[in-house]
Amino acid sequence: MTEEEPIALELAKKQREISVASFFEKNRHLLGFDNPRKALLTTIKEAVDNSLDACEEANILPEISVEVIEMSENKFKVIVEDNGPGIVKKQIPHIFARLLYGSKFFKLSQSRGQQGIGISASVMYAQLTTGRSAKITSRIDPKHPAHYYELRIDTHKNKPGIQKEEIVKWEKEHGTKIELDLEGSYQKGDQSIDRYLKQTAIVNPHITLIYQPPKGEQVIFAKATDIMPKKAIEIKPHPYGVEIGRLISMLALTESRTLQSFLMSEFSRIGSGTAKQICENVSLLPNTKPRNINRDMAEKLIEGIQKTKIIAPPTDCISPIGEELLEKGLRKEINAEFYCATTRPPAVYRGNPFVVEAAIAYGGEQSAEDSMKLLRYANRVPLLYQQGACAVTRSAINTMWRNYGLSQSRGALPVGPATLVVHIASVWVPFTSESKEAIAHYPEIVKEIKLALQECGRKLGLYVNKKKRIQFEGKKRDYIQTFIPHIGSALKNLINISDSEEKKIEGLLAEALEKTRGELEKVGVIDNPDYDGEMASIGKEEKKEEGAEKSEGNEKQTTLED
Amino acid sequence: MTEEEPIALELAKKQREISVASFFEKNRHLLGFDNPRKALLTTIKEAVDNSLDACEEANILPEISVEVIEMSENKFKVIVEDNGPGIVKKQIPHIFARLLYGSKFFKLSQSRGQQGIGISASVMYAQLTTGRSAKITSRIDPKHPAHYYELRIDTHKNKPGIQKEEIVKWEKEHGTKIELDLEGSYQKGDQSIDRYLKQTAIVNPHITLIYQPPKGEQVIFAKATDIMPKKAIEIKPHPYGVEIGRLISMLALTESRTLQSFLMSEFSRIGSGTAKQICENVSLLPNTKPRNINRDMAEKLIEGIQKTKIIAPPTDCISPIGEELLEKGLRKEINAEFYCATTRPPAVYRGNPFVVEAAIAYGGEQSAEDSMKLLRYANRVPLLYQQGACAVTRSAINTMWRNYGLSQSRGALPVGPATLVVHIASVWVPFTSESKEAIAHYPEIVKEIKLALQECGRKLGLYVNKKKRIQFEGKKRDYIQTFIPHIGSALKNLINISDSEEKKIEGLLAEALEKTRGELEKVGVIDNPDYDGEMASIGKEEKKEEGAEKSEGNEKQTTLED
Repeated sequence: MTEEEPIALELAKKQREISVASFFEKNRHLLGFDNPRKALLTTIKEAVDNSLDACEEANILPEISVEVIEMSENKFKVIVEDNGPGIVKKQIPHIFARLLYGSKFFKLSQSRGQQGIGISASVMYAQLTTGRSAKITSRIDPKHPAHYYELRIDTHKNKPGIQKEEIVKWEKEHGTKIELDLEGSYQKGDQSIDRYLKQTAIVNPHITLIYQPPKGEQVIFAKATDIMPKKAIEIKPHPYGVEIGRLISMLALTESRTLQSFLMSEFSRIGSGTAKQICENVSLLPNTKPRNINRDMAEKLIEGIQKTKIIAPPTDCISPIGEELLEKGLRKEINAEFYCATTRPPAVYRGNPFVVEAAIAYGGEQSAEDSMKLLRYANRVPLLYQQGACAVTRSAINTMWRNYGLSQSRGALPVGPATLVVHIASVWVPFTSESKEAIAHYPEIVKEIKLALQECGRKLGLYVNKKKRIQFEGKKRDYIQTFIPHIGSALKNLINISDSEEKKIEGLLAEALEKTRGELEKVGVIDNPDYDGEMASIGKEEKKEEGAEKSEGNEKQTTLED
Repeated sequence: MTEEEPIALELAKKQREISVASFFEKNRHLLGFDNPRKALLTTIKEAVDNSLDACEEANILPEISVEVIEMSENKFKVIVEDNGPGIVKKQIPHIFARLLYGSKFFKLSQSRGQQGIGISASVMYAQLTTGRSAKITSRIDPKHPAHYYELRIDTHKNKPGIQKEEIVKWEKEHGTKIELDLEGSYQKGDQSIDRYLKQTAIVNPHITLIYQPPKGEQVIFAKATDIMPKKAIEIKPHPYGVEIGRLISMLALTESRTLQSFLMSEFSRIGSGTAKQICENVSLLPNTKPRNINRDMAEKLIEGIQKTKIIAPPTDCISPIGEELLEKGLRKEINAEFYCATTRPPAVYRGNPFVVEAAIAYGGEQSAEDSMKLLRYANRVPLLYQQGACAVTRSAINTMWRNYGLSQSRGALPVGPATLVVHIASVWVPFTSESKEAIAHYPEIVKEIKLALQECGRKLGLYVNKKKRIQFEGKKRDYIQTFIPHIGSALKNLINISDSEEKKIEGLLAEALEKTRGELEKVGVIDNPDYDGEMASIGKEEKKEEGAEKSEGNEKQTTLED
């Protein structure tokens, strides 16, 4: 370069395209490969989630086996095998060794995977940390052979590299198996593979999971039902959620010949009447050719849509777990005294329908000293990391649990022997990162979660307060029974009565006290254990739940919260 | 599809490639476009960061103007213009209307941008929310004309669409201007454009920023120095950070003909001696052809690298602000009594060199009742969102600020009239999301931040404790001066002395008390204001900083922390 040349020419030489694989190789922590422990979990999660999606799409009750073998220090072999529909030969390399390739991204219906990144990212991570290829076997039915592949990703091009490809014998009639060698670290406890599989079983009562950990015995999570979840139906976008840029590109790509037919065929909930009304509202002709609609007309069209009353999007695109099965799943895995569950009606954020469900298990073997345990789910997948960054956590913290009989400090989860489950089902769950660990704080979603928590909370509150009342009653009765004999014997000494007279007086005293108690109850005074300050402070339990019992006027307060 | 066909064939039809633009259009919150307010800030941030990078690469003192015009409710026009080197004609469309295209991704040297996503994402967001194209003008020197473009992104293909392209007259000799119409929301306060620009000025004392907000007067942030920051030099990767997968692909792509020359040319800090030693350590021949090295040999090579002592990576790839300029910048923008700054020696995470710097401004007009203000920076760019998710915040919370004279509750930032600045400079800053708002918790980074905070904290502690001692001294003196005259006049009444005798006695008393005080000081008793419990509780200030004064043994405690 001579002195005279503008520096821009020199700078220009460095400009180049960056493949999405290179991008994520360098930013692997965005995909859940921050550290060896999380990397191992993420890999299993991506494989199992894909298997579950495939089985459900093909209407097959999923049977999935997961095997983790420790090969050397920090090196593991992971094998995940399913009985799903299998993958056609020519797509195997693309599905497992190419980022941003998949079937679920453009589809508006609930599924676990959505991005087309996860499993290929696992293959890339395995290759990066051990230099070894992914080994895939898949078969689509007994009439077709099983295909075996050894695959690598060419990260610079984000294209699959086929190392080996052959037909093999496989006893399975249909299904897919993936084998990966990767750097990892295996530990039990929170955020472990064991925990992920257990939590998966809770909200997917129709699946069978067979798990062989690196050490110890095989674990089997048996299915609790033979009924498949209701299949989520693909929908078209709802007109209320469409933005002008998206509308313009839809108008450019459509095969419809008129504006009216465009509206009817590209959106959900628009019939010919509604389509005409939208056009009329802003003086556009229903027979305008979509390609002749310019930016300004598109802006008017959006206006027309906003002005027209259109019914809410269909919700068969979502397949919630349902109150009954959610509670059943929770009962199976957590030993408690009280269970409740709620499923909210569908709502919409940015045009995407979603449903929030919540369930609580209270008491039993759960620790009363610790924070409530929070189990978060999105489209039936447990979320184990980034609890603090999640909309579910914020909503749980902002709920007034004291109203429901649990103690709670400002800005914290409540304390008590309880497990809270929250499930968000949507055609597109907005995660805070590609690793899909926490849900973004869209206001509509935060609001729905809070409403679900309040519904569950009210049911819980009734139980907790009743339980406290019974304990309180028991204690009063104990006092009466403890002190009356002393009064009797004192009277006996003072006025020199007989044993039978003593018993009679004791009986009368007990009756009188029980009666007073009954009357106090009728006017609602001792319904609230907080009424008698001294008595309330006798039991240890009351002390722990400082101030939590002030439950009068619950409903009003919770309504004001929003 | 007949009944007989395997379902896999049907499922296969839905598989397709997803363009990275489609991916981020749907996941726009990952890029900082969660809501209209943040979207407006993100757009300006991306444009300004690019301008600053370009100016610095071309060794031009940056002069950047930012204009925000409110066009209608929630619709804004943003114009950012710089005096940078300009962009060559044929690259303008790619740089502004194609995601994952840029010059900084593969380069190992410090820069603000790194992903090749930001500005094109802003163009995409503008197009999506207003349907309008981006307008770009750029010129590389007086001998070349200025080029004007109107650009759109074809999101399905992630390719630029050129709406208009022409040569225009432009008074600027070189520079770039971008104009975008987008949905936004303008508010002052935290996380505002004003705040971002002000914070940018603090750590970039060499830049001039002219800002025209939608309402109100123009704001000019003048430069504080004519000296450009030291230019960051591009380096090769350090061998200690290389993973086997990366090594295998480097071996496949290299033009070197022997293993020895490969090691010398592709890595930093490897001369011929070190290269030979690496090979010797694991019995590989230095003249092996790189293409003949298989996976197992590559694994041995990694082993050989680990066994060999190689000096730390060069650090001229990083351009820290420096203690002096950091303090100067802070002085310019924050009115305080005490300032200190520290720059740590370089460290390495995952093979990437980085430097942590910290500075504190204490006292003055800052509120003593609030939490310490935290200003986070990465590669000279202020981070305004997701403070809670950032490694800087975690490190600041985990530092024992009580040792340095500030009060602090467990798990919270300290309370006091202080602003803390933390800057991380690296060839690759690991952010928790593409929106580059928070730094990921790599243990090496967390550790360095803590060390920087402790260094600054110790300097602060000396000042705060000295100030407290002086206040305490002053109070003692006040007491002596208040009470001695009373003693004098009492004596006068009791023993009937003259006025002059009274004065003399008062003088003697004062002297005696001062002397005692002096001796107490010598033996170190009243050095600690906490010594006299009663006295310490007199001033309001002490009360507020409950227990913060226990400063003896600071150094030991802070060393034990790590």
